[in-house]
Amino acid sequence: MTREQLFEQIIKKQSFLCVGLDTDIRKIPQHLLQEEDPIFSFNKAIIDATAAYCVAYKPNLAFYESMGVRGWISFEKTIQYLNENYPEQMIIADAKRGDIGNTSAMYARTFFEEINVDAVTVAPYMGEDSVTPFLGYEGKWVILLALTSNKGSHDFQLTEDANGEKLFEKVLHKSQEWADANQMMYVVGATQGKAFEDIRRIAPDHFLLVPGVGAQGGSLEEVCKYGMNKNCGLIVNSSRAIIYADTTEQYAEVAAQKAKEVQEQMAAELAKAGF
Amino acid sequence: MTREQLFEQIIKKQSFLCVGLDTDIRKIPQHLLQEEDPIFSFNKAIIDATAAYCVAYKPNLAFYESMGVRGWISFEKTIQYLNENYPEQMIIADAKRGDIGNTSAMYARTFFEEINVDAVTVAPYMGEDSVTPFLGYEGKWVILLALTSNKGSHDFQLTEDANGEKLFEKVLHKSQEWADANQMMYVVGATQGKAFEDIRRIAPDHFLLVPGVGAQGGSLEEVCKYGMNKNCGLIVNSSRAIIYADTTEQYAEVAAQKAKEVQEQMAAELAKAGF
Repeated sequence: MTREQLFEQIIKKQSFLCVGLDTDIRKIPQHLLQEEDPIFSFNKAIIDATAAYCVAYKPNLAFYESMGVRGWISFEKTIQYLNENYPEQMIIADAKRGDIGNTSAMYARTFFEEINVDAVTVAPYMGEDSVTPFLGYEGKWVILLALTSNKGSHDFQLTEDANGEKLFEKVLHKSQEWADANQMMYVVGATQGKAFEDIRRIAPDHFLLVPGVGAQGGSLEEVCKYGMNKNCGLIVNSSRAIIYADTTEQYAEVAAQKAKEVQEQMAAELAKAGF
Repeated sequence: MTREQLFEQIIKKQSFLCVGLDTDIRKIPQHLLQEEDPIFSFNKAIIDATAAYCVAYKPNLAFYESMGVRGWISFEKTIQYLNENYPEQMIIADAKRGDIGNTSAMYARTFFEEINVDAVTVAPYMGEDSVTPFLGYEGKWVILLALTSNKGSHDFQLTEDANGEKLFEKVLHKSQEWADANQMMYVVGATQGKAFEDIRRIAPDHFLLVPGVGAQGGSLEEVCKYGMNKNCGLIVNSSRAIIYADTTEQYAEVAAQKAKEVQEQMAAELAKAGF
């Protein structure tokens, strides 16, 4: 998926919502446990119910790995279902991978060739040769961790070097030597508020993947005020607040309702910005 | 596995070798492709041939994930085989995971409860709450990335803050507030030479997992000179130089020979240090 295609979808749907598929067997409605593949059944129902209100889905690998082989089957079926039925949706594998060159190349092959997602989240700690193997695929994206939504983001990401440059700013600067805004996005937590201004000074054109609205407490309005750019430039993720909004047999309808509410807020923000 | 048990194994075997199971379907001997599970068959033969010369095995998750569901089956069978037949071996899942708290907790549960490995490699970029969920398991280890073996390690890990402290040094300092040398180790690349002196100043007691000897060009003698401590304190990994030393039907015997050569060099280093 190209940047233009993503922007087109955002305008068409009046939404920049990404639904996080953090599917946990202990949290899905109990009646699904009788199904052959409860995780996939849940994902399929959530996707069918919410696809009209979002532009991306983000399965978090941790939740699938926790189920071992069964989890991988559910993960692969979910990706296949999305690719076959909703090819306009961006699929983000939230994997936070990153290793020496030959190993990162292996991860890239897995996610982009075998499983066929559109984007992978990557951790920057190991530097250039841990990231660049993910960049050789046309229409595929690296989403690099910059300033994350969690409390621990303060431990290292805000450390200033001798010139006053913070580590996350260095990540933004340095990584732009490896790829431009057509291949790279950045993870910036919604909880970071005005830091979006600093980020937009360094990376004005890039899309930002923004977790932390909803369960983690970030404000959509603030994210839009400081983070939106001329191509919208935002994909805002919500996981638990949508997919676990209800745990009865009506879970999918309630998830759709929650996604629609977020979409309407997003439409208002897009209107404010003239889109 | 406790620190004392690991040290006992090192003394008993006169080895601190970890064999990296970076098992790639494209690189294993061709005759194995007729087997039902070529990856597991290869691992089993390599393990049986080398177990006398090493104290740990380190499967790299990227290589298993690249095979999808089949790869996860091979991975789980390999761990089960090690736990059943070689319980004295430390099993390190080289996964380089790390995410917000609830997600890291999920990864920890997967690796320590479901799959039952002894240690997981973790990336520090997201800070405390991305690491601590891995620390609640008795006898289990976090191996935190500090100073890696690749060229890209220079991009961020060597960045100095206003007080002249490098990022990897900050990782070493800060993480000691979260766990001590009985639960945490650090990844330090063999290619980093004299940096081991700086690391030992900050982390004198910790075990270090050292990749980069062999294919990546690090020197065992130099690693031992600057990195060994009073409990040996080193686990040195070799992957490709051992497991792919030969690609004929004799691959396991040749791997054993290569592992034995490294073990003998390690015995000499242990003798120098009086162990």
